[in-house]
Amino acid sequence: MQAPPQRTDRHRVRRHPERAAYDRERLYAVLDAAFLAHVAFVVDGQPFAIPMLHARDGERVLLHGSVSSRLLAALAGGAPCCLAVTVLDGLVLARSQFAHSVNYRSAVVFGRAVEVTDPDDKARCLWRLTDRIVPGRAADSRPADDGELAGTRVLAVSIEDASVKVRSGGPRDHEADLALPHWTGVVPLALSHGIPQPAPGSESIPLPAYLAPSTDP
Amino acid sequence: MQAPPQRTDRHRVRRHPERAAYDRERLYAVLDAAFLAHVAFVVDGQPFAIPMLHARDGERVLLHGSVSSRLLAALAGGAPCCLAVTVLDGLVLARSQFAHSVNYRSAVVFGRAVEVTDPDDKARCLWRLTDRIVPGRAADSRPADDGELAGTRVLAVSIEDASVKVRSGGPRDHEADLALPHWTGVVPLALSHGIPQPAPGSESIPLPAYLAPSTDP
Repeated sequence: MQAPPQRTDRHRVRRHPERAAYDRERLYAVLDAAFLAHVAFVVDGQPFAIPMLHARDGERVLLHGSVSSRLLAALAGGAPCCLAVTVLDGLVLARSQFAHSVNYRSAVVFGRAVEVTDPDDKARCLWRLTDRIVPGRAADSRPADDGELAGTRVLAVSIEDASVKVRSGGPRDHEADLALPHWTGVVPLALSHGIPQPAPGSESIPLPAYLAPSTDP
Repeated sequence: MQAPPQRTDRHRVRRHPERAAYDRERLYAVLDAAFLAHVAFVVDGQPFAIPMLHARDGERVLLHGSVSSRLLAALAGGAPCCLAVTVLDGLVLARSQFAHSVNYRSAVVFGRAVEVTDPDDKARCLWRLTDRIVPGRAADSRPADDGELAGTRVLAVSIEDASVKVRSGGPRDHEADLALPHWTGVVPLALSHGIPQPAPGSESIPLPAYLAPSTDP
């Protein structure tokens, strides 16, 4: 039996509280914008932080891996976990080293994982995880067969507590530094997608529409 | 008194051992290539994962933050921590959903943090952390003054155990799937730097050479 979730203040942001938010709408936006999660949990007193692909499914966050993964097994046992995602938006260059910063959107979720065992739910979760790689891809690939389903563990992390932290905008130098001659500003950062490289056998297959370069600026 | 480091197998990669490495050279390369770390540690049985800027300084990994941060104080107390960095290199699209993957370079470091208190060492660490934002920037900004040094905590994480995991190359579909008609290949990913946006007051200052667009392909 696992203990019921405890309401705590573990998710309260102390540093730069003006950057913090606690509403689900902003939490979901950051979880959906981030491509990768780092999941922390404890085994025999030792903290682990593991990079994992995640996908939000309503109020739960999906993870997956091999049934032979000891770390996934530890998570599936209902140990408390902390899932963090961070989207980097820019480098903030100020006149003082102290005022240098980074623009980012981050979310930290505290919860526990439960294993998804219902076959239909599990297949749907894997579909969603595939579509996180490229939206539209799940429908254009072979779904998991029974053997692959049996070899994969899917976990759903409940969101017990969570916080979002965002920094945006330019540098905020001290008044006394404003006369210093250094260039200041922001260098935008983004995870960019390059030109798709076909694997052997796919050179003559037209590039799927969902891989076409975005027309967004 | 903190316990001496224990040699354990906590860092041994079980899943996809062919992707793993344990030598310092490759570890340092991944730590240096990643812009952001996620640091896991335990407070009262609760795991935390916090995004932090990191900088490698020889055999130690530097972190910093405010002296008023309770999380940094917990880390500085010598609690075991796990620092993970991940560089995303590509999306791997296979014929089966199961064979989809991501190309990446990740490193996981197990160690303990000690606070850097020597004033000269501390100032040098903050210089290095500033230069992680943009190489060359530390020399073109005002170093921390005594008040800023006093308000900042610098931690150095010792590397007790560590592992590197790398996936590269194209999709590896099962033989039975090779006749399926889906496009397969790799979509390269990279954290790209956009055009620097000057802050008010810097519009007429020439862009520093270290911010000029790279001539690399």
